[in-house]
Amino acid sequence: MEREAAELFEEFKELTASEFFRRNKQMLGFSGKIRSLTIVFHELITNSLDAAEEAGILPEIKIDLKRLEKDHYILKHQDNGPGIPEHYITRVFSTMFAGSKFRNIQSRGQQGLGCSGCVLLSQMTTGKPAKVVSGWYEGEKLKGVEMVFKMDVKTNQGLILSRKEVEVDSTGVKVELHFKDVSYSLSEQGAYEYIRRTMIANPHCKITFRDPTGHKYIFDRADKGIPPLPKEVLPHPKGVTADDLIFMAKHTDKRRFRSLLTSNLSRMSTKRVKEIEEITGIDLNKRPKDMKWEEAETIVETFAKMDFMAPPTSGLIPIGKEQIDKGMREILTPEFISSITRKPKTFRGGISFVVEAGISYGGDSGRMVGEQRKAEIMRFANRVPLTFDQGSCAITEALKSIDWKRYGVRDLDNAPITVFVNIVSTNVPYLSTGKQSVAPEPEILHEVRQATMKVARKMQKYIRAKRAAKEEALRSKVFESLVPVIIREAALLAEQDVPEYDAVLAKVTRRTKYEGVVEDE
Amino acid sequence: MEREAAELFEEFKELTASEFFRRNKQMLGFSGKIRSLTIVFHELITNSLDAAEEAGILPEIKIDLKRLEKDHYILKHQDNGPGIPEHYITRVFSTMFAGSKFRNIQSRGQQGLGCSGCVLLSQMTTGKPAKVVSGWYEGEKLKGVEMVFKMDVKTNQGLILSRKEVEVDSTGVKVELHFKDVSYSLSEQGAYEYIRRTMIANPHCKITFRDPTGHKYIFDRADKGIPPLPKEVLPHPKGVTADDLIFMAKHTDKRRFRSLLTSNLSRMSTKRVKEIEEITGIDLNKRPKDMKWEEAETIVETFAKMDFMAPPTSGLIPIGKEQIDKGMREILTPEFISSITRKPKTFRGGISFVVEAGISYGGDSGRMVGEQRKAEIMRFANRVPLTFDQGSCAITEALKSIDWKRYGVRDLDNAPITVFVNIVSTNVPYLSTGKQSVAPEPEILHEVRQATMKVARKMQKYIRAKRAAKEEALRSKVFESLVPVIIREAALLAEQDVPEYDAVLAKVTRRTKYEGVVEDE
Repeated sequence: MEREAAELFEEFKELTASEFFRRNKQMLGFSGKIRSLTIVFHELITNSLDAAEEAGILPEIKIDLKRLEKDHYILKHQDNGPGIPEHYITRVFSTMFAGSKFRNIQSRGQQGLGCSGCVLLSQMTTGKPAKVVSGWYEGEKLKGVEMVFKMDVKTNQGLILSRKEVEVDSTGVKVELHFKDVSYSLSEQGAYEYIRRTMIANPHCKITFRDPTGHKYIFDRADKGIPPLPKEVLPHPKGVTADDLIFMAKHTDKRRFRSLLTSNLSRMSTKRVKEIEEITGIDLNKRPKDMKWEEAETIVETFAKMDFMAPPTSGLIPIGKEQIDKGMREILTPEFISSITRKPKTFRGGISFVVEAGISYGGDSGRMVGEQRKAEIMRFANRVPLTFDQGSCAITEALKSIDWKRYGVRDLDNAPITVFVNIVSTNVPYLSTGKQSVAPEPEILHEVRQATMKVARKMQKYIRAKRAAKEEALRSKVFESLVPVIIREAALLAEQDVPEYDAVLAKVTRRTKYEGVVEDE
Repeated sequence: MEREAAELFEEFKELTASEFFRRNKQMLGFSGKIRSLTIVFHELITNSLDAAEEAGILPEIKIDLKRLEKDHYILKHQDNGPGIPEHYITRVFSTMFAGSKFRNIQSRGQQGLGCSGCVLLSQMTTGKPAKVVSGWYEGEKLKGVEMVFKMDVKTNQGLILSRKEVEVDSTGVKVELHFKDVSYSLSEQGAYEYIRRTMIANPHCKITFRDPTGHKYIFDRADKGIPPLPKEVLPHPKGVTADDLIFMAKHTDKRRFRSLLTSNLSRMSTKRVKEIEEITGIDLNKRPKDMKWEEAETIVETFAKMDFMAPPTSGLIPIGKEQIDKGMREILTPEFISSITRKPKTFRGGISFVVEAGISYGGDSGRMVGEQRKAEIMRFANRVPLTFDQGSCAITEALKSIDWKRYGVRDLDNAPITVFVNIVSTNVPYLSTGKQSVAPEPEILHEVRQATMKVARKMQKYIRAKRAAKEEALRSKVFESLVPVIIREAALLAEQDVPEYDAVLAKVTRRTKYEGVVEDE
């Protein structure tokens, strides 16, 4: 029996973004109890850090995770950022695809999904509303409001249950969410480890965390400098597609394509525009709307053939060697540490990035697995810990390709070391949908290798020197205990008095000992 | 310098679903040239098969992939389904999150993203509009329309460039899309292999495919029965969450929660509702809107403790042993084949599923890798080939856990066999966002193992018998050549005439040969 098309389309309907993600929460990273909670921590922490830094405030976050019954948790997350004006509160926390980070800027968050996703998960697992207290300045006036709301998935908007003005001491946002079907864990992929790694890459922030057992961890700042604010940089000609040009042309207020190019792309001067006109034969004086796809394509092909200065690096704010050292020292209290921030490079012809690497040895470096201390690899992108999907990540691949034996590490997996790698870019080429791994672009692989080998070489020197010093010390000890015996026996044989040898011997052995001492960096 | 909140929110904006996916196309599975094209094939093919079967039409698909220049392709995809009424054409192909499959039904597609995603990718890589010709019945009248349109990502809607009525011979949809930055490949993850596997799991459909070299592959149907249409089944009590109940209560037209339960869930009679009232003490006569979260939670907890009949299996339409055999025979022309469709089981307490497995040996079974024929594992969910992320899939895991040596396969990787597994469910528990792997639910792992071991045992019998027959044949040959000599020599020794032994010998050796022959199944 055949059925008619109209009948089949009776059920046709359109979902809102919230409805869609309610049915596909794994697309937001919410799969598995441990991972779900870690993703919640990730979304709220990155949001708080971005907001505080953008406002020029030294970030401080207070997190309180209480367990009410088996897998029912209450999470209180408070920051000291600039706050959210009332008008935006439910939009930030209940509207999917809404945000202020859809720009070409180095920031932790990017998608306008994070906070709403947390509210959605809370609501789906507990039916409880979200409570948000926001304090923000309106001109000179510090305002405060407390809102309790749910997410109306049918409209992709917040549904306010209560709203009252409250007094606040300072700016910032306090979020209170209930969760079920999540799990707090100390494992490598759990929420605690996420905070610990965040601290290593962000030694300027302070996080206080009360865990479900009631234990309060205070991760104090190892440094008081707010990282310079990354500037929004215009896309580099080698990083745009024909579709990007057409999209720009459609939504610009410029009257001429020529001025659209110079004002929307970096490294694009009137002179370069003229060159492009000469090469392509396209009249760039035309209105943006008149730009045809084929022309846009020709222009992009021309970009590919031209030489441009690398993109401005003012858009890239690495953590910096000093800060990485501080972060790792504070958290890992290692015997030895070395780190490096490489110079900016580009991949795919024009997207700039910076690789930073650090390596620490001894102390709390590595990771206790049962009784064994194993190596630990900490991956970061724009200071954000990458927790999942390590298998396919450029960082993992680059580190695996290093011949660690050459650096005195016989078995990387079982060495008491922590390897830290951070990739900084306005356009980190994430591989997976959850943004948990970086695509193995050849230039990125190369830089991660170079950076890591550089710090590994320093560690090797340290380990060698340490070993030499140990052997030397042993030798000195043997020397110190044997020489007197020889002297005494020789004196006895020669039938002479035993001479005064203490001063001379001390001089000799002390010198030998000093020679074994390592210069620290 | 601190900045005020209002200033920071100046850039706050909301994206449409299309804008969002334009920025995150990897979330639609579009990453990598080969994968991107395979995903396009997947979306269009699954859509065509679902539509034809839903309308009761034996599916026939014609695909023509032309390469214009290096990586610029034109894809023409035509089906013989019921067609799309004009009003819905741009909504199907240009509105994200729109579709008719948001129901509790076993279907290939589910997300309302596929076709729009293909148009988005086409537009992003080539700037070209989509062309769709649709033929459909309006009452007795066969109507036809040709539309050329783009996707307006700012509004998540189609932007019609031209529209004309055309004459069509029959119902169906013809889509024409341009793509760049994709790549056609014969590899295991490429578009050709996707079609081949689709044919194995859907022997009732016919696919004609002209590849970029101009070669025309005709995959003819091995069977002419349209699979029975899966029925939409109500969710089983053990498969719903408190959030589901509250969501149903919000959007129902029932006046009493009691009748909402009986009409929205399977296996839920007035008697069961009374039991629930008794156990929970909740008055289910209340209006759905008055249902509180805590009550919904209590009800779900009660469901978990109650015994329910398994969900109706009318919602599950497995391929069936006979069809799997036909599909595998047609494509793999194997020496031996065995397949099985297991009985429906449930996972997570109440979601029903069926596992089917097949194994083929010899012929075109397995996969040529260089000069070597290797084993090939074909994973399917609801007849759809799963191409990526095999590592984490329940099917891979279950097959790996089998001790293949027990089944006469010394080295699975290097055996000339194809293992086929299909998981059928209204709610396949996909693991990854791209729906390319199945979560390792214990009950699913168990069923996949059982099904595969069952068919592997049959294969083992065949291989053993084949080996025995070979040895037997060798023995017969020896027998046939030696016995006459012995007879002749014996006659010579005994100084007698050589007797007539041909008839007797033939009888003996023929019997021995027949004994080595295998019963097929």
